[in-house]
Amino acid sequence: MSGNTFGKLFTVTTFGESHGAALGAIVDGCPPGLPLSEENLQRDLDRRRPGSSRHTTQRQEPDQVRILSGVFEGKTTGCSIGLLIENTDQRSKDYSKIKDQFRPAHADYTYHHKYGHRDYRGGGRSSARETAMRVAAGAIAKQFLAAQGVVIRGYMSQLGPIKIDFKTWESVDQNAFFSPDPDKVPELEAYMDQLRRDQDSVGAEITVVAEGVPVGLGEPVFDRLDAELAHGLMSINAVKGIEIGAGFASVAQRGSEHRDEMSPDGFLSNHAGGVLGGISSGQPITARLALKPTSSITTPGRSIDVYGEPIEIVTKGRHDPCVGIRATPIAEAMMAITLVDHWLRHRGQNADVSVTTPRLGQC
Amino acid sequence: MSGNTFGKLFTVTTFGESHGAALGAIVDGCPPGLPLSEENLQRDLDRRRPGSSRHTTQRQEPDQVRILSGVFEGKTTGCSIGLLIENTDQRSKDYSKIKDQFRPAHADYTYHHKYGHRDYRGGGRSSARETAMRVAAGAIAKQFLAAQGVVIRGYMSQLGPIKIDFKTWESVDQNAFFSPDPDKVPELEAYMDQLRRDQDSVGAEITVVAEGVPVGLGEPVFDRLDAELAHGLMSINAVKGIEIGAGFASVAQRGSEHRDEMSPDGFLSNHAGGVLGGISSGQPITARLALKPTSSITTPGRSIDVYGEPIEIVTKGRHDPCVGIRATPIAEAMMAITLVDHWLRHRGQNADVSVTTPRLGQC
Amino acid sequence: MSGNTFGKLFTVTTFGESHGAALGAIVDGCPPGLPLSEENLQRDLDRRRPGSSRHTTQRQEPDQVRILSGVFEGKTTGCSIGLLIENTDQRSKDYSKIKDQFRPAHADYTYHHKYGHRDYRGGGRSSARETAMRVAAGAIAKQFLAAQGVVIRGYMSQLGPIKIDFKTWESVDQNAFFSPDPDKVPELEAYMDQLRRDQDSVGAEITVVAEGVPVGLGEPVFDRLDAELAHGLMSINAVKGIEIGAGFASVAQRGSEHRDEMSPDGFLSNHAGGVLGGISSGQPITARLALKPTSSITTPGRSIDVYGEPIEIVTKGRHDPCVGIRATPIAEAMMAITLVDHWLRHRGQNADVSVTTPRLGQC
Amino acid sequence: MSGNTFGKLFTVTTFGESHGAALGAIVDGCPPGLPLSEENLQRDLDRRRPGSSRHTTQRQEPDQVRILSGVFEGKTTGCSIGLLIENTDQRSKDYSKIKDQFRPAHADYTYHHKYGHRDYRGGGRSSARETAMRVAAGAIAKQFLAAQGVVIRGYMSQLGPIKIDFKTWESVDQNAFFSPDPDKVPELEAYMDQLRRDQDSVGAEITVVAEGVPVGLGEPVFDRLDAELAHGLMSINAVKGIEIGAGFASVAQRGSEHRDEMSPDGFLSNHAGGVLGGISSGQPITARLALKPTSSITTPGRSIDVYGEPIEIVTKGRHDPCVGIRATPIAEAMMAITLVDHWLRHRGQNADVSVTTPRLGQC
Repeated sequence: MSGNTFGKLFTVTTFGESHGAALGAIVDGCPPGLPLSEENLQRDLDRRRPGSSRHTTQRQEPDQVRILSGVFEGKTTGCSIGLLIENTDQRSKDYSKIKDQFRPAHADYTYHHKYGHRDYRGGGRSSARETAMRVAAGAIAKQFLAAQGVVIRGYMSQLGPIKIDFKTWESVDQNAFFSPDPDKVPELEAYMDQLRRDQDSVGAEITVVAEGVPVGLGEPVFDRLDAELAHGLMSINAVKGIEIGAGFASVAQRGSEHRDEMSPDGFLSNHAGGVLGGISSGQPITARLALKPTSSITTPGRSIDVYGEPIEIVTKGRHDPCVGIRATPIAEAMMAITLVDHWLRHRGQNADVSVTTPRLGQC
Repeated sequence: MSGNTFGKLFTVTTFGESHGAALGAIVDGCPPGLPLSEENLQRDLDRRRPGSSRHTTQRQEPDQVRILSGVFEGKTTGCSIGLLIENTDQRSKDYSKIKDQFRPAHADYTYHHKYGHRDYRGGGRSSARETAMRVAAGAIAKQFLAAQGVVIRGYMSQLGPIKIDFKTWESVDQNAFFSPDPDKVPELEAYMDQLRRDQDSVGAEITVVAEGVPVGLGEPVFDRLDAELAHGLMSINAVKGIEIGAGFASVAQRGSEHRDEMSPDGFLSNHAGGVLGGISSGQPITARLALKPTSSITTPGRSIDVYGEPIEIVTKGRHDPCVGIRATPIAEAMMAITLVDHWLRHRGQNADVSVTTPRLGQC
Repeated sequence: MSGNTFGKLFTVTTFGESHGAALGAIVDGCPPGLPLSEENLQRDLDRRRPGSSRHTTQRQEPDQVRILSGVFEGKTTGCSIGLLIENTDQRSKDYSKIKDQFRPAHADYTYHHKYGHRDYRGGGRSSARETAMRVAAGAIAKQFLAAQGVVIRGYMSQLGPIKIDFKTWESVDQNAFFSPDPDKVPELEAYMDQLRRDQDSVGAEITVVAEGVPVGLGEPVFDRLDAELAHGLMSINAVKGIEIGAGFASVAQRGSEHRDEMSPDGFLSNHAGGVLGGISSGQPITARLALKPTSSITTPGRSIDVYGEPIEIVTKGRHDPCVGIRATPIAEAMMAITLVDHWLRHRGQNADVSVTTPRLGQC
Repeated sequence: MSGNTFGKLFTVTTFGESHGAALGAIVDGCPPGLPLSEENLQRDLDRRRPGSSRHTTQRQEPDQVRILSGVFEGKTTGCSIGLLIENTDQRSKDYSKIKDQFRPAHADYTYHHKYGHRDYRGGGRSSARETAMRVAAGAIAKQFLAAQGVVIRGYMSQLGPIKIDFKTWESVDQNAFFSPDPDKVPELEAYMDQLRRDQDSVGAEITVVAEGVPVGLGEPVFDRLDAELAHGLMSINAVKGIEIGAGFASVAQRGSEHRDEMSPDGFLSNHAGGVLGGISSGQPITARLALKPTSSITTPGRSIDVYGEPIEIVTKGRHDPCVGIRATPIAEAMMAITLVDHWLRHRGQNADVSVTTPRLGQC
C-alpha cells in the first residue's frame, strides 16, 4: 500500500494539500446498509474546525463535506464512498517568501529532499489540514461502531505543564479545549493567552477511550490491535509518543501489580488498557498521545535555505499555538478507523467461532 | 495483509508456536547481491537466546537457524528467503494443567475468545518465542543497511525503577542486560536476584537508535516513518508505550525549545528524534519502548477458567522475570526491517529525484 | 486491500456510480517532478467518452476531469493526486421501474445478494461509467511511461465475427472503432447498424501493446507481470478472457515452434508476448481481451424480480450495443497502471543491480 | 505486498528453488477449528508429484510435506501455518554447464537482468517445482471450502491438438493425464510417446470448475472474482491465456445468446461462467487455462550467453514433455486459495447482510 491509504479491509485513502483546490477521501469496505448522511460527518468536522475559538488558528474554513458516492437512499451500499471538502480560505500570499526556506521543525526540509519538488504553501501535504479528511472518514467508522455499541471519546489530559484529570464526558464538548474538567478551563485559557503573548507554543497530551469493544479484535503477531492503534495515532501530525493502558508507568511496575486479575464478575483492573496479547479483551481501550508544540511560531529561529545558506525564520500566517487543542477528534477518528478495520478482519476470519466461556465485564 | 506479515516491499512473514515443531519466516523483497550467511543471522539470535544467563528463562534452545532458499553462492538472489529454527527444548508437560485456565495478563483469555481453539502450551503463538524469527529476519535487514552505512543499536535505558544512562556502545554487549553503563550492572543483578526471591517481575525501557539513515525515508501521511516504527515496535510482546525523540517530554516543551534549528553545519538539536513530518531527516532516529512486567510469575493470582469459574493461578515453568532483558535485539530487528522496507519504497518512487541542496550533518 | 484499489506502490483507488454525484480517483505513489496537467488526462477521456458517435451510447457526458491535489506549478509533487469528474447527464427516471428487477447478465442479482442494498440506477457501481476514472488515472501512468520511452497503444482486433488485422497505428484514432485497418470501417459500420435494428449486441476483442518496456518488470511468483496484467485487464467490465502472446494458440504449438530463440541481434520471435518467467523481456508486451456482448439490449428476456417471481425484462435507456468499441482506452489505461506499479517495485528492490550482459533488441 | 504472497485475508507466501534445500509456505488467515492433517495435503501433492508416470519428468521427489505450526490436536488454531517440503532428488551436476547460458523461452535471461545474481540450477525459483507449495496450501483451502459445500475439480480439456470432451469426474483421477474421458487415454499416450521421440513438447488446456460457491464472492471493481482468478491462474508457470465461462467465444456471441436468463427454478444457462459483475452468482465457476509447451526440450535451439555471444542450446536433464499434464492440481489449488480469500473478505464486510430474495439454483 502507498502511504496515503490506511487499513486492510476498511480502508481510508486521502488527498489534499493545505492550499490546494480541495481535500478528499475514499472510504472503501464500509459494510452496506449503514445509515449515513453528510450531517453525521459534519458534526465531527465542526468539532475539529479551525477558527472556532480564539485559541486556534484564525483561518476560517467552513469544512463542508460532500458525500459523492457509496450512499443511496440514506444508507451505505458497500461500494466505495467518495468524500470531498473544497478549500475556500487559503491565503497563498502568506507563504511566497518561504518557497526557498526551510522552517525549522517543519517538514519543509524532509519533503524537499524526498520529493525534490514540493508545494510549499502552508506546508502543502504535510499540513494538519489533511486531518479534516481523517475526521470525515472516522465519522463513518464511528457510525458503524455506534450501531455495534462501541463508543469512542477523547479528551485533553494535559496542556503543556498543566495536568487535567478526568471529571465528566459532558464537559469535554462544552469548552474549546476538550477538557474533561470544566474547572480547569480558566487556567487553560490564561495559559494560552500568555503563550500567544510570548509568541510561542506548547505541546499537549490527548487521551482517547473506546468502550464496548468486544473481545477478539486484533491480528497477531504484527497487526496486534495496539500496534495498529499506535500506527494510526502516531501518523497524526505532531505526535511523538503513544501509550496503551499503563504505558510507560509499566516500566517500574511489578508483575503482581500490573497484571489485571479476573473474576466471574469481570476484570479487576485495566493496566493493559483493553488489549491483551494484541487482542481486545472487552475492557475499555485507553490510549494516550503526546503532541509536540507547533513549529509555526513567530519567535525567530535559525535555519537554512535551499542553497544551504544560513537564514533567520519568522513564521507568519495563521497558526495554532497548540495543535493539541484540535487533536481530540482526529485521535477519535483514527481509533475508530482502526477498530472498524479490525472488526471486519476478525469476523472475516473467525465468524464461525463460537465459545461458551462467558465474556467478562469491564472493571 | 494478514497479521503475520510486516512490510510492503520488504516483507517478513512468520510462523511458529512456543511448543510447536519449529519456527520459521519468509523474507521477501530483499535486494539481490547481498552477501548473506547463517552466521550473519546466528550472531543476533545468540544475543537474544534464552538460557544465556541466570537472569533469563532457563529454557535451553540452541536457536540454530537454517537458510533454506533465496541465497546462492553466498549472496541473495532477490527471491524469497526461507528461514527455519527447529524447537528442541519444549517441555509440554509443564502446561497440561493450564489448558482450561486463563492466566491473568496473558493472551489465553483473548486467544480463546478470538479463535475458539488454541494451542495452550507455553502461550502458543502468543509466546515471545516467535520473536526469534523477527531477530533472524532483522539480521538480514541489518546486513543490507550496514552495506548502506546505516547502523542500528539498542540498549536497556531503564530496568524497573533503575534508570540507566548511556555511557558507551561497547558496554552493551558485554553484560547480560544490554546495559550501556558497565557500572550499573551489579545494581541490576542485585535487583534481579531480589525479584526472583520475591517471585515477581518488573518492566523495562529499551532505547534503540539508527544512525546513518539518509534523509527521505517514510511515506506520509499514514505510513509516516515514525508511525511505522511505532507499529513494528509495539507489535513486540509486552510493549505498552513508544516514544520518538523527546516523546512525552514534548508535551510540556515550548515550541522555541523543542524545535531543532538548522545551520549549514547541521541540525542544532534532535528533539524530533530523526523524523520530521514523518520522513527521516538524516539525524539519528531514536525510539524508546516501554515493556510491561512479565505476566508469568509464581506469585498466585486470581483468575477464571474456561467455564467462567473462579480459580487461583500459579504459573510454573521457566520464564523471564524481566522480558526486557532480551528485548534489545528484537527492537533492533523491528527497526531494521521497517527501515529497509522504507528504503526500498522510497527509492522505488523517488529514484529520479536529485536535489542540489546539501544534506545536513547530524548534531 | 479493498477491491477499489489497484496496485502496490503506484496505486489507483476509485469511487463513483453511474448516477451518483461524481466519479473520482486518488492516484498515490506517482513519482514527483512529472509534468502533468488536466489536458494530459482529458485527451484519453475524450477517446473514451460516450456520445461521440452513433455507434455508442447516446448519453452525453463531457467527462471534464479536475486535478485537485498532488500537482504544483505543473509538476507532480509525489503526494496523492485527487481526480474528480462531475456527472451531469444522468437520467434517473429511466431506471425507476427496474429497482425490483434483475436484468439478466447484469450485476443486479449479484450486487443485491452481496450487499443487500444497491443503487439500482443505471447499474450503480457496476456500470462501465466508473472506467472513466481508470482512464484518467491511466493517463498519469502513460505520462510517466512516455518519459521513460514506453508507449502503450491498443486497437480493436475483432468485432463480433469480423476479424480486423493490424495495418497502421495511425488509423486507430481516426475512426470510432479504434480499428487499425481503415478499409474495414464501412463493414464494421454496416454490421453495427444492423445490430441496432436487431435490437441486439455483440462482443469484441481488443489488442493492447506496450513497446519500449525494459527487461526486468514483474515480481514472481504470484505477481508475475502477466498475472498482474491479467488481473487489471479482466477487472474491466465485460471481459471474459485474456491472452498474452500466443495465448490459446500455445496449446497446440510444439515447444520447438513456440520458443523465442535469441541471437545477438535480438529475439527471433515473440510468442511469449514480451513476458518470460513472469518478467518483461524487453520485447513488446501484447495482450488480448475478449469482451462479452452488452447485456443491456432491448430484446425482451426472461428473469426474476426481488421476490423471486418470473418477469420479462426489456432494458430501456441509452446503451452501448458493443462495449468493446470504447474499451481500447480502458485497456491501455490498465496496462499503463500495472506497468508503472511494477516499474517502481522493480527499481525499489533492484536499483543496485547492474549487469554487463547486453539487452536484446526486439524482433 | 511482495510477489511471493497471494491473497489479502487468507494469504499464501512461499519460498524455494528447484535445487535449494527445501520448499516452504506460510498460510495465514485460515479460520480456526478446521480439521487438518498432513494426509489432507499429501493427497493433492501426490496427484502433482513428478515421476509418477512415464509421461512426466523422471525426477523422483517424494514431496513429503510437514505441518510445522498452526494446527493443534488436529484442528487449525487460526495462527499462521508453516509448511515444509525438503528437496531430496536434485541433481545439480546436470546444470553446471548452463550457468552462463540463457535457455530460450526460459526465465534465465529475464532473471539475470532483473536480479543480476541467480540460482541457475534447474531454473531456480522460476522452476515449476515451487508449485508444490501452492498445491499444499491449496489443499488447506480446499479443506475449508469442502466444509462449506464447495467442490473444486479440474481436468485436461486439450492436449496439443487433441480436444478432450468432458465425460465423467471419476475418470479424471484414474489416468495420468487427468483426462475426463477414459476412451481418449490411448490416443493421448501415443501422442506423448511420439513427442518424446521427436524430442519436442506441446501445450495443453486445463479446465477447472468450482461448484457450490454461494452468491456474493468478489470485490468490485478491481478485485472482481474473475480478475483475481485470472491473476492466480496466470501466475502458474507456462500459462498464456485465461477464459471464464464462454471466454473468447463471447466475442462473436450476440447479447441475446450470451446472456444467462433467470427463472424461479434457476439460471437457464451459464455463459458467464459463474461470475456476474465480478461477483459469484451461485452458478458453477468455470475457468480454462492455456499452457504453453515446455521450453526444456532436447532439440537444439539458438540463444546467447551472458556475454552476448551466440550459442546453441541443448537442454539436458529430466523434464516434462508437457507441463500441462501436472497442472490440474495446481489450477485447483489456485482457484481454492482465491475463493477462500474472497469468502473471508465477503463475510468480513457483509456478514450482516440478509436478503429475502431466494437464491437461484444452478442450471
